[in-house]
Amino acid sequence: YHEQQSNDREQNLRSFLLIICGGMIFFMQSGFAMLCAGSVRLKNVQNTMLKNLLDACGAALSFYLVGYALAFGGDYDYNNLSESNSNPTSNSTTTFVGTTNFASVGPSSAYWFFEYTFSATSVTIVAGTLAERCQMAAYLAYSVALAGFIYPVIAHSIWSNEGFLSRTNYSPFMDSGVIDFAGGGVVHLNGGLIALYATLVLGPRRGRFYDPQGEPLINPQPFPGHSVALQLLGTMILWFGWFGFNPGSALLLVDNHEFGQVAANAAVATALSGASGGITALFTNLWWEERVTGEPKFVIQMAMNGALSGLVAVTSGCAVMEPWAAIITGVIAGWLYMLSSTILIKLKIDDAVNAIPVHMVNGGWGLISTGLFASPKLLQLTYGNADHPGFIYTFNNNDGVEANLLLCQFCAILFILGWTFITMFPFFIWLNYRGWLRADSLEELVGLDVSYHGRGTHGSEGGEHVQKEYIDA
Amino acid sequence: YHEQQSNDREQNLRSFLLIICGGMIFFMQSGFAMLCAGSVRLKNVQNTMLKNLLDACGAALSFYLVGYALAFGGDYDYNNLSESNSNPTSNSTTTFVGTTNFASVGPSSAYWFFEYTFSATSVTIVAGTLAERCQMAAYLAYSVALAGFIYPVIAHSIWSNEGFLSRTNYSPFMDSGVIDFAGGGVVHLNGGLIALYATLVLGPRRGRFYDPQGEPLINPQPFPGHSVALQLLGTMILWFGWFGFNPGSALLLVDNHEFGQVAANAAVATALSGASGGITALFTNLWWEERVTGEPKFVIQMAMNGALSGLVAVTSGCAVMEPWAAIITGVIAGWLYMLSSTILIKLKIDDAVNAIPVHMVNGGWGLISTGLFASPKLLQLTYGNADHPGFIYTFNNNDGVEANLLLCQFCAILFILGWTFITMFPFFIWLNYRGWLRADSLEELVGLDVSYHGRGTHGSEGGEHVQKEYIDA
Amino acid sequence: YHEQQSNDREQNLRSFLLIICGGMIFFMQSGFAMLCAGSVRLKNVQNTMLKNLLDACGAALSFYLVGYALAFGGDYDYNNLSESNSNPTSNSTTTFVGTTNFASVGPSSAYWFFEYTFSATSVTIVAGTLAERCQMAAYLAYSVALAGFIYPVIAHSIWSNEGFLSRTNYSPFMDSGVIDFAGGGVVHLNGGLIALYATLVLGPRRGRFYDPQGEPLINPQPFPGHSVALQLLGTMILWFGWFGFNPGSALLLVDNHEFGQVAANAAVATALSGASGGITALFTNLWWEERVTGEPKFVIQMAMNGALSGLVAVTSGCAVMEPWAAIITGVIAGWLYMLSSTILIKLKIDDAVNAIPVHMVNGGWGLISTGLFASPKLLQLTYGNADHPGFIYTFNNNDGVEANLLLCQFCAILFILGWTFITMFPFFIWLNYRGWLRADSLEELVGLDVSYHGRGTHGSEGGEHVQKEYIDA
Repeated sequence: YHEQQSNDREQNLRSFLLIICGGMIFFMQSGFAMLCAGSVRLKNVQNTMLKNLLDACGAALSFYLVGYALAFGGDYDYNNLSESNSNPTSNSTTTFVGTTNFASVGPSSAYWFFEYTFSATSVTIVAGTLAERCQMAAYLAYSVALAGFIYPVIAHSIWSNEGFLSRTNYSPFMDSGVIDFAGGGVVHLNGGLIALYATLVLGPRRGRFYDPQGEPLINPQPFPGHSVALQLLGTMILWFGWFGFNPGSALLLVDNHEFGQVAANAAVATALSGASGGITALFTNLWWEERVTGEPKFVIQMAMNGALSGLVAVTSGCAVMEPWAAIITGVIAGWLYMLSSTILIKLKIDDAVNAIPVHMVNGGWGLISTGLFASPKLLQLTYGNADHPGFIYTFNNNDGVEANLLLCQFCAILFILGWTFITMFPFFIWLNYRGWLRADSLEELVGLDVSYHGRGTHGSEGGEHVQKEYIDA
Repeated sequence: YHEQQSNDREQNLRSFLLIICGGMIFFMQSGFAMLCAGSVRLKNVQNTMLKNLLDACGAALSFYLVGYALAFGGDYDYNNLSESNSNPTSNSTTTFVGTTNFASVGPSSAYWFFEYTFSATSVTIVAGTLAERCQMAAYLAYSVALAGFIYPVIAHSIWSNEGFLSRTNYSPFMDSGVIDFAGGGVVHLNGGLIALYATLVLGPRRGRFYDPQGEPLINPQPFPGHSVALQLLGTMILWFGWFGFNPGSALLLVDNHEFGQVAANAAVATALSGASGGITALFTNLWWEERVTGEPKFVIQMAMNGALSGLVAVTSGCAVMEPWAAIITGVIAGWLYMLSSTILIKLKIDDAVNAIPVHMVNGGWGLISTGLFASPKLLQLTYGNADHPGFIYTFNNNDGVEANLLLCQFCAILFILGWTFITMFPFFIWLNYRGWLRADSLEELVGLDVSYHGRGTHGSEGGEHVQKEYIDA
Repeated sequence: YHEQQSNDREQNLRSFLLIICGGMIFFMQSGFAMLCAGSVRLKNVQNTMLKNLLDACGAALSFYLVGYALAFGGDYDYNNLSESNSNPTSNSTTTFVGTTNFASVGPSSAYWFFEYTFSATSVTIVAGTLAERCQMAAYLAYSVALAGFIYPVIAHSIWSNEGFLSRTNYSPFMDSGVIDFAGGGVVHLNGGLIALYATLVLGPRRGRFYDPQGEPLINPQPFPGHSVALQLLGTMILWFGWFGFNPGSALLLVDNHEFGQVAANAAVATALSGASGGITALFTNLWWEERVTGEPKFVIQMAMNGALSGLVAVTSGCAVMEPWAAIITGVIAGWLYMLSSTILIKLKIDDAVNAIPVHMVNGGWGLISTGLFASPKLLQLTYGNADHPGFIYTFNNNDGVEANLLLCQFCAILFILGWTFITMFPFFIWLNYRGWLRADSLEELVGLDVSYHGRGTHGSEGGEHVQKEYIDA
């Protein structure tokens, strides 16, 4: 009896904490909104923000109608901790998608709510990259596809008990299964890849890499955002939300009764990796600018995107990485951000908010770093076994070097890349072929706020500027 | 002994969660502040925001001094779960207001804190509607009246064990009592009604419906807010806070030991109804604009206010509505918002932030939708009995159709309407008669920031604009 | 067994709540960032905000590497509640700093994370005061010194079991030890004092108190901030975070199993003191302005800084003060803010965001008010004994008046003042002597955004204004 009562109370606690953490993750929507709003030119602010708001709304409905069913339908009841139910082996199948619980929140409302906030985050990552030139219709089309089908398939494969890459599968892939603790792959790599495909098809903003005659510019034209204050606010809201995102995921460990400690380790790793990423990018850039131009510059965007890169990179492995490993992960994330951001510009791939370097590149790096640094001690605490630790821990192992986990992580990257490529790339090409993807030149010039939303953001303020651009064009 | 210890620990948990949820509700004050600041013209930003800050401060003091006593003084100790104490029948009276615990936080600090944040929310709803033309003195007068007396009487009647409409009354009204789980009636309908009375007496802003000669304009002059980014930020902060507002109210169910599950149901309903409201208003407006003007427009204010309408509407019944019912509630809320917003303009009633359609109309709709959709299963989970479910559930009932709950909900609307009407409407008329309500023409023209706060918000920026208006006037 | 399981579950709960509260405190960084960004002129926005972001990042790394070790290394394991371990007498030493756990998060990740957010807050207080004229290099230097050494020494002395002023020392100072429940002294007085030393050495902003010829101005030139909306947003985010800061500190009371109630009392005191401070400063100023100028003015900055002053002042004693005492503390905090702010201007000490009156003066007042008002009942609840209550409670004591606690609080002020004075004052003088402290005149004139960050915040907008100033200069 006491056992039962005690379990009930733990369940109460978990449900409530899932709601609070879910609320914090939901709040990340406004972080993305502020970050994007600050990063675009004044004439596109409304358009950018509406997309962020629609993400939150659309994902709720589509995750309720189909997303949850495809991702987690058929999984056991997270609300019920009794032995027979929570034992994964009782669901001894592997499926491509779940097939029950359509138009339902499944057995646990708290679990549904928490997972919904993740799916909404995944969708919102894409919007920033395409800002300032994408049609509303195209945005609506890919959002529905992503939230209703593409994301759930990945979440199912990696997180569901029936997923073929899942650590809780009755017979895990390579005897290990993928560790994507809070969705560095499922959410960030996924969103970042789709952003990449979309911008490849969509092309750069007018005037970013080519002059009006279509000749390539020698130096790409930077389009500075209209408000650094909103960018910083957005970054900090995201970081705050990440403390719900990463530690909150510990609440999903059904049989783990030390989830508080797991969550605390995740919180520490999150803080340290974000901090390292920000400092690394800021000072590496400072040193580089001084070398090249002779003048040191503290570029705040470097600190912000570096920190976000560190946060993305630690998302996969936050619960199973020692603090020092989180710092290394963050430092490398900062460098990867700088490198990939430069490469994108060299390749004339236009990303309005640098979401591809932040989310795609570091989402991938996070999966790999987990494969390298997952510590046996923390694996034991988190998952109850440490059979296949991170690569570096297998060197001083009597059984010899083994890379099962690392290979699983690679496979997760390949799977996410392949799945999104075969589905979303053709989809964007089709949208483009139908003329539904790109806003027309004039709309882009005037700004999407006037084109789609009937009026500029700030009254007449933007008007003269636009007229001047007209004349130039 | 274990029983006792276990109860103590649950009490610890509840107290702490009440504080966190209360903190999130408190944060809604800044949501309202940003929403209002973004919705008014630059010349009134300071004035609007000061009112929001004063709400938070003033409500704390007045709720401590008298509000809590009138609302909940005499109720049992929420800190003590033992049988004898928490049994409502031991307080076998029905009173108009509580009469103990003046200048006190009562037996439970956590409960006081949580309830304080609700009362502050109620006050802050009114300020937005009256923005840009109301005197500071009038604002102070009605704030004190509302937080110290009007709101506590309603809260007492509907939530206290001694309230005549309360579900926890020893002999509930119509054997059922009102279900206003998180205050759709007590907080939102209440605040929205008072906003309506005030703006009726106060009149529209200069130039909104009439030209300088007093002739009615053919098309009302829109006064676009100065920052969509702040409006969106405010909306999202409010939504985040709602996840403390609605699920947090489950912590008040004294004898319910499955409050985590109740809270989770509330969170799901909150997410779905807000999402439905936003999408419904955005796309209905899009379709309508295309029909009328031939040009589809995505109006972000529709999505924002639609979402807020859905959130208000689900506040009364979030814990007892199935997800599909929350979606229906949200869809209708979106439509009601559009309809009532149009009617207000037709009637030349000026609401600077659309608080009347959002809070009054949908606060009322929420009470009714609870009377329609309260599900027996969730009533059982939430309140421990399902004697009088929502109207639609009584059709396939052997005992025949019954509408006790629905009628109770109607009575709650009538009571709130009547109580605020007989107290606040004369109050505003008296304020107006004394010349204390409306800022004078010149003050309104220059902007309240200069008039009451000594300087404009953004230095000289607004200066020239004002001078131009002078000349026009 | 049940005992053990029950303890484990409480530990889970505490860990998780520490993370959520820590997240809220972390979010205060963006509150400071918005407050500072709104308070400075447009040309310095980026510079100000970058400092806030760097605080969060830098403090994480330095607290991990050395700060935690110096502050709490050697303390017992907060993760383990068993009798033998949590008994302070088993650590029967008093030390100046801890000497173990370098480059480590110590035994409890949750505790580390929570304490990290406190240290980051302490650093960020200083940045605001020095805004608009301090070099980046100087900022980096004092940040590292503060987070890595100065702050940990104070935290160790007052909070660690081995600290000489600590209440949990095996032989507490004056048989009582200092009560600084949530860091009014350790965090706020400390940060405010360092801000004072820095601005004394740094001097006022160009044109604030002297004209270009170096003649003192008759009336100091106010430098109004560029956005009241951001100031208000920052204030409200800070207040929200304070509900993690103050109540969250109850989670550190290792042997206290009624921490939920302690936290609730802290939440109530926080709400009431902040509210009183805001209202007091606003209306005292209104009354004063009317007396002096004949025209009443509602100055929103008074309400904001008054509220923050009340919040700072209640931080030391929030858990041990009755609500009425919190109100008195807040009222006096509002007055002290006004008084000290005026004196600073008279002394020509330039504080760009009024951090010295808010944090230094009221951090000190908070320690004293705790010595006056700590109630025996709440001391018993919080610390398990009420041997030395606040001064006012000893009058109706049979044992005669005693002021042990009050004297301890005075000693804490003296210790913090002395320690920061002998370390940081010479440090700033040395920085200044080397020419590393103050940005040069031209940089200050153009704005630090252009000087250090390569471009203005808002494109060409600020350009003309600066040019005009050049010509004036």
